[in-house]
Order: sequence, then structure tokens, then C-alpha cells
Amino acid sequence: MHKEIVSLQNSLIKELVLLKEKSRIRRVKGSFLLEGLREIELATIGNYAIENIFYCLDIISLECIQNMQTRLPDSVCFIKVNKDVYQKIAYRKTTEGVIAVVISKSHSLKDILFKRKTPLILIAEAPEKPGNIGALLRTADAANIDAVFIANPKTDLYNPNIIRSSVGCLFTTQIATGSTAEILNYLKDHNINSYAAVLKENSELYQNQDFTNSSAIVVGTEATGLSEEWLQGATKKIIIPMNGKIDSMNVSVAASILIFEASRQRNFQ
Amino acid sequence: MHKEIVSLQNSLIKELVLLKEKSRIRRVKGSFLLEGLREIELATIGNYAIENIFYCLDIISLECIQNMQTRLPDSVCFIKVNKDVYQKIAYRKTTEGVIAVVISKSHSLKDILFKRKTPLILIAEAPEKPGNIGALLRTADAANIDAVFIANPKTDLYNPNIIRSSVGCLFTTQIATGSTAEILNYLKDHNINSYAAVLKENSELYQNQDFTNSSAIVVGTEATGLSEEWLQGATKKIIIPMNGKIDSMNVSVAASILIFEASRQRNFQ
Repeated sequence: MHKEIVSLQNSLIKELVLLKEKSRIRRVKGSFLLEGLREIELATIGNYAIENIFYCLDIISLECIQNMQTRLPDSVCFIKVNKDVYQKIAYRKTTEGVIAVVISKSHSLKDILFKRKTPLILIAEAPEKPGNIGALLRTADAANIDAVFIANPKTDLYNPNIIRSSVGCLFTTQIATGSTAEILNYLKDHNINSYAAVLKENSELYQNQDFTNSSAIVVGTEATGLSEEWLQGATKKIIIPMNGKIDSMNVSVAASILIFEASRQRNFQ
Repeated sequence: MHKEIVSLQNSLIKELVLLKEKSRIRRVKGSFLLEGLREIELATIGNYAIENIFYCLDIISLECIQNMQTRLPDSVCFIKVNKDVYQKIAYRKTTEGVIAVVISKSHSLKDILFKRKTPLILIAEAPEKPGNIGALLRTADAANIDAVFIANPKTDLYNPNIIRSSVGCLFTTQIATGSTAEILNYLKDHNINSYAAVLKENSELYQNQDFTNSSAIVVGTEATGLSEEWLQGATKKIIIPMNGKIDSMNVSVAASILIFEASRQRNFQ
């Protein structure tokens, strides 16, 4: 089905702007905006359902849109918009020319399916910067780990900055969210060892750990580290030795060093 | 010596704004702006010479400034400014209250002094994003490597975004810049093996390399990777195995995985 919208005052357009800007609206509606051919393709591969597609022929060719239509279910409504309308709803203004309304997923712990008998999981507690979450998801994709858990999330995962900085890895990685208590219980129920990355010296060196068993690497925020709940609840506290003058490491860098050490020990299987 | 400036039209203030905003002016003047007590402290530890200090007593206490004065040479001129003037020259507006004019360093390859008999070096070719350069410098500090070389730099190192994102590691790490040809010659002259990180499959796995000899890890940009000059000139081409659907890794994350694998092999000595 094809439609056209040319007015900035159209009520649907106003709703889309809210969907782009407001986490609360995304939660209430159960959907989010996704820009770009490649991103929409990755979302469909990741079994996300598309509701509507908005496209602007000043930016993207009709051929691209028709190709896309052949790959999507007939139920998806295609809506042509002019450049003014497009720029109002777009996050990246004039770079893509196509925006989808996509149905959110629940990110429930019970839906996680492990790829390996001894899964490798990355857990981030209360990450605040969207760019860091995106970088963590890129690492999770590159190392092909089993899942990423976000404990006590501070933001919804469909924040446009997370989508953008994850370069699509939001859709290729299994993600669950939950409270720290729920995740600690989950790890216990599934016999998964958890390794809390800390900066304190009375911790064990990461390079001396055996990550070939079921393992979860747990990282906190750059500002405050992990909560007491994790420090008490994790199987072990581990540390990356730092020998510099400042000893400050980006959280996604620290997580990557730990995840790739685990992958190395597992021969990248 | 103490002075006071209250006018936004003061010619010195106009010069400082240019120094903040223009790479060309920083090059011509041979100096740059540095905000924050901690950053200024780190720069002095790193043997940078301070020219002037501008401070705003609406933001920082006189006691802090007096303490700072006792630790700096008498030649440093302290200049009080009001809030309007401060906000005009400051990059972070109202967070610090103190800004120094600092003399730039030359970053010449010939000035590099290695800490180890078998140095470990990180080389980044033409990095474009200041945030990535900052993250690379944080990793360099944390792993306490011998030096960072920037090949064919696209920006001056005293860009305010690099200073900010390096959280001071710009001043704690030995840095040299040069053309790729100059750096390749330097490595040859000093018998340092270079490992060019690439995404192509006909490369050797990073985890199978011996990084305990004199080693340089070389990374390119996320967009285009390393130049042909590096691919031909490096001792070896190495790859981080990626098993994901997207296989996209932030350049600072890739560099950190390689640098910490080298550090692990060297027992973090």
C-alpha cells in the first residue's frame, strides 16, 4: 500500500517526531524509528517486524524502495514524504532517505537462547552513554558472543544514538535487560560464572582466569564502576593491570580486552 | 604577576578564542589552550611549559589558584577574568574556571626515548576522529607502552576534542608524528617489527604472533583501513578474527585488543 504525506502538520508526522525524541513514547507505543536501508535490512534479518516505511525521493531512488518492497511483507505500508517532512522525522537529516517504524522487542531474559554449551556473555550495569552501549554491541557482534545483558538500564535500547553508534549490531546480537538481582539469579540458575571487572587491587588478574567455562564478563560505568550488589554477587572480581599515570580506560575498551581474552582462550570457537 | 581583564573586546582574549578554534593559529603561535586544574597539573608533570593562566573566581576559589601558583615558575603570568570573558575562551564553559596557555611540543621522532629494551609502540595512520585519538592515548597510558606515533596526521594534537577525550593522557604518553615513510624508516633503523592490523583474510592471526620483541602495532582508519604503503611496508599483516554478522570494530577497541595481547605476552612488564 502506498500513501503520501506533504504536510508538516500531519498528526502521524507529529507522532513520529515524538517517537524519535521521547523514550517514554517509544515505551508506550512499543515501536521505534530506524533510518537507513542497511539498518532496516539488518533489523528484518534480526526478526524485527516493520510497521511503516517513510521514504523521500529527493534523497533515495524509487528503485531502492521498490527493491525493499519485494523483500518485505505486503502488510508494510509505504508512505512517500517530501523533503521538509523527511527532515523533520529524520535523525540524520539528508543522508538516508528512508525511515521505518519498527516494533520493539521485549528483551526478556527468558527469551535468550545460547549458541554454545558454555556461553560467553557480556553484562553492562547501568551504562549511561549511548556511544558506549553502541561500542559494546559492536564488540559483542565481532566476538559473536552469546548475549549481552544490560543490568538496571538507564535508557531504552532504541535511543537513536544507540542505534547509530551500534552500526546495526543492536539487531544482530541477543540482548536482555533486567535488574541486577534478576540477572544474578539467572546466572546462578544457568551455572554461569560471573567476572566483575573492577579497578581495585585486591582482585585477580584477568589473564590468569579460565574463561572456557560458561562465563559472563561484567562491567560498570566509567564514573562509578560496579555496584556493591555486583561486587558481592559475582563469582570473582577481576582486574586489568594498568601501569600508566592515569589508568583510565573507556568501558567499551575494557570490555573488549576481556571478551577477546575469553575468545582467545576458546580458540575463537 | 597578576593582571585582570574584564572586556570581551580585549585583543588578548580575541587571540585566545582563535587559539581555541583554529588549528592553523595553534601551529603559527606554537601554543594551545588547556582547561582544568588536573589537566594543567598533568601537562606540567609532562614537562610542558605554561605561559599564562586565566582564572575566573566565580567558578574556582582563590585558594586553588594560589596553590597552583606555588607550584609553577614565577614567570607564569596569572590573569583574572570575569565570567563573560571566561565563557568566551573556555571550551567547557563553566566547569573548570582555569585555563592555561601552554607551549606546544614538536613531537619529533628523534626525541623519543624508549623505556624498555624491546619497546612496544602503537601507530595510528591518519586518524580522523578526535575521540578515537583520545581513546588510543588512554589505552597507551593504561598499558604504559613506550610511545604512540601518528602517521600522516589529519589534525593537530592540541585540538580541544583530543585534549578532552584523552583525559590528560596526551601529556603522560610520548607521542611523535611523521609521514608514513619517515615512520617506516624509523622502525627499520631501530629494528622494530611492525604489525599492520587489517581486515583481510590472508593475514596472520594476532594471537599467534610473538609480540615480546620490539613491536609496533599499526592501525588505520575505520573507514578505509591502512594505506598500501603500510600494507607493503609492515613486517606482517595481522588480523583479529571476527565471527559476527557485521564485523565492525571501533579502531580504538581493535588497537586495545592488540596492545593488551602484547602486554599479556610480556607479563605486563
